[in-house]
Amino acid sequence: MTAKKIEERPGCIQHTLEVMGDKWTGLIVRDLSSRPATFTELELSLVGISPRTLSQRLDKLEKEDIVSKQLYCERPPRYNYVLTSKGKELQDILSKMAAWGARHFEEA
Amino acid sequence: MTAKKIEERPGCIQHTLEVMGDKWTGLIVRDLSSRPATFTELELSLVGISPRTLSQRLDKLEKEDIVSKQLYCERPPRYNYVLTSKGKELQDILSKMAAWGARHFEEA
Repeated sequence: MTAKKIEERPGCIQHTLEVMGDKWTGLIVRDLSSRPATFTELELSLVGISPRTLSQRLDKLEKEDIVSKQLYCERPPRYNYVLTSKGKELQDILSKMAAWGARHFEEA
Repeated sequence: MTAKKIEERPGCIQHTLEVMGDKWTGLIVRDLSSRPATFTELELSLVGISPRTLSQRLDKLEKEDIVSKQLYCERPPRYNYVLTSKGKELQDILSKMAAWGARHFEEA
């Protein structure tokens, strides 16, 4: 692989790491990459996450405009979480992380 | 940007996030992307890091075979930290993180 120069002001990568630099956040974005999901679907998929942590991470992702909430049923009110266009831009980064992980780690 | 499918066993991305999912770790790899550096050079570059934290992160990165230590002066013993080939593969991910950060965040 050709080494690419990482051109950025230091703050840029730092901001991205602050957003992504949390295990659950990356996994939530990964899950939403394949399809929109409800809170319950995410909770079932992310084994070991507490409802409180999931709720906090989703709030943070909404605030960062990475995830948005869509009403899909009015009565009772039901929401799907979907990636925004900004969130979709992270898919490529996550794909590369997954590929790197697959190359270098033994699976349990 | 075309959405790419993120194909991986869940563990792969999780491993990568565990390695990279720490602000300082990403910044150390970024710094070493451009050139090898001594402990003191890294400490000066990573404003706000404590010697203890830097030392812990470098130990972890050495253990993960992402960074290696090279003796460049025998008397007194002086070391440079350099990226391994496994570590260099992370440069592309960090470049993309930097680009995403630059697109989406205001700089102070």
